[in-house]
Amino acid sequence: MTLLVVGSTAFDTIETPHGTAADCLGGSSTYFSLAARLFTSVRLVSVVGSDFPSAHRQLLESRGVDIAGLESKPGKTFRWHGRYASDMNSRQTLDVQLNTFGDFKPVVPPAFRDTPFVFLANGAPATQASVLDQMTKPQFVVADTMDLWIEHERAGLEALMRRLDGLIVNDSEVKMLTGRSNLIQAGRAALAMGPKLVIVKKGEHGCFVFSNFFHYALPAYPTENVLDPTGAGDSFAGGFMGYLANCDSVTLWNMKRAVAYGTVTASLTVEGFGVDRLASSDRALVDRRYHELQQFVAAG
Amino acid sequence: MTLLVVGSTAFDTIETPHGTAADCLGGSSTYFSLAARLFTSVRLVSVVGSDFPSAHRQLLESRGVDIAGLESKPGKTFRWHGRYASDMNSRQTLDVQLNTFGDFKPVVPPAFRDTPFVFLANGAPATQASVLDQMTKPQFVVADTMDLWIEHERAGLEALMRRLDGLIVNDSEVKMLTGRSNLIQAGRAALAMGPKLVIVKKGEHGCFVFSNFFHYALPAYPTENVLDPTGAGDSFAGGFMGYLANCDSVTLWNMKRAVAYGTVTASLTVEGFGVDRLASSDRALVDRRYHELQQFVAAG
Repeated sequence: MTLLVVGSTAFDTIETPHGTAADCLGGSSTYFSLAARLFTSVRLVSVVGSDFPSAHRQLLESRGVDIAGLESKPGKTFRWHGRYASDMNSRQTLDVQLNTFGDFKPVVPPAFRDTPFVFLANGAPATQASVLDQMTKPQFVVADTMDLWIEHERAGLEALMRRLDGLIVNDSEVKMLTGRSNLIQAGRAALAMGPKLVIVKKGEHGCFVFSNFFHYALPAYPTENVLDPTGAGDSFAGGFMGYLANCDSVTLWNMKRAVAYGTVTASLTVEGFGVDRLASSDRALVDRRYHELQQFVAAG
Repeated sequence: MTLLVVGSTAFDTIETPHGTAADCLGGSSTYFSLAARLFTSVRLVSVVGSDFPSAHRQLLESRGVDIAGLESKPGKTFRWHGRYASDMNSRQTLDVQLNTFGDFKPVVPPAFRDTPFVFLANGAPATQASVLDQMTKPQFVVADTMDLWIEHERAGLEALMRRLDGLIVNDSEVKMLTGRSNLIQAGRAALAMGPKLVIVKKGEHGCFVFSNFFHYALPAYPTENVLDPTGAGDSFAGGFMGYLANCDSVTLWNMKRAVAYGTVTASLTVEGFGVDRLASSDRALVDRRYHELQQFVAAG
């Protein structure tokens, strides 16, 4: 089945202990769609400025991403500049210029409105809800969020959560959202807020999955060469949603497999700067890592 | 097969957001042996002062721990006083009085010297090595260590590591030991220093196991009620070594199962203050949690 993503497209400048890359193609919709296209057909809704080069459009199209929903507006594309600490786990945002993304009012093209799988990348809850309002037959809707919205747009976020099938957040966000410092308690509490599924990302420590029917934990793929963690979370979401959209049905086992595919997809992203490694990966590589990950966690 | 532990016995005063407990029975040999006795016969070598009450001895003996190696010396028992932060993950040591443990020169009773499984709890590498020198038929020797020895007794620690079957350390220690910030790289590098097996504990995030033949990752048991994390690491080691000592052979699968048993044993410890919950647990409870943990990590 097809999959729609609504999120940002950006130019990222990334500093890590391994080097610096300026003005890379980035943004949540980019990482998500380059990950998800490994599994299924992806439709992208986002916005860029007039400085967005055709080479980037071509890259996305050459990977099978339908960019009919990539709006171009006068002005500049969203820009982010960040720096990672030596352990690669914490990062500092040095500069953000929202530019055309600042007043992004996503319009889902009519041909996209019947897409059954929908991913609402991080954004204002009201904006995420406005996308959902445009969809005619949503079957499985997952959203990401962040501390900014948890703190300042709580009512909107709570209303959105009641409309979601799944929420993907990181460990500090779910603790903030629920006021629980124990991660298992926090996951359960988030589940009680509406979504049928809550996935808590823990970076190098993997993730937890909470549902009313099962809890599941999966370590990260044991990658040794982390060059740039940017986009790992959106790549995880893309691998997860892409795999699931390609399944016949959303079952417990398909969800567990999808979490593992999200995990290995994210492991590819962090091994290159920006989207380089992700864009050059194929399904065979992802499958190889999937089986390695299953080996890594195979119980006695 | 029997299992020997050499380590500290202590009075712990523990402050957590859930309350304070003064002068609890603690120390690495105590937690380790109360964990390991759930699986096999345990022999304890440690030291206490004349203030150590017979009730504590009786507790250990009533749980089947052979305390013929628990030396009593004039003076006071080792005392530790610590405080946990609200997230229960970081702690501050408020006071340490080494007392009789300060110049502990462990003497393994003659009847204990042929014990095949040996755990050298955290201590000066020279002291750990002196225990190994006394053993006549060691078959599987595992040690714990800490930042103090990595920094100040490096040569002794490296010499000890070449004599070990296994090393159990936490994530910050293995990074410090190897100078690698990536945990997978650090685990491999520690393996190259001698031990056949390196287990890296990550607290609430579970553990990694490194050997030349397999790598393995296991999340922690998803406990929601962490009252006091003190002793979790030694309980993990006790469950791991106890299960393994009770197996007929040290195989890959037995090691993986032992890691899971160590994980669930540690989850019991943290649900009570001091050794309370661990001492009142039985094998049936441990087995129940073992199966729950296997469910929690069962792949798709």
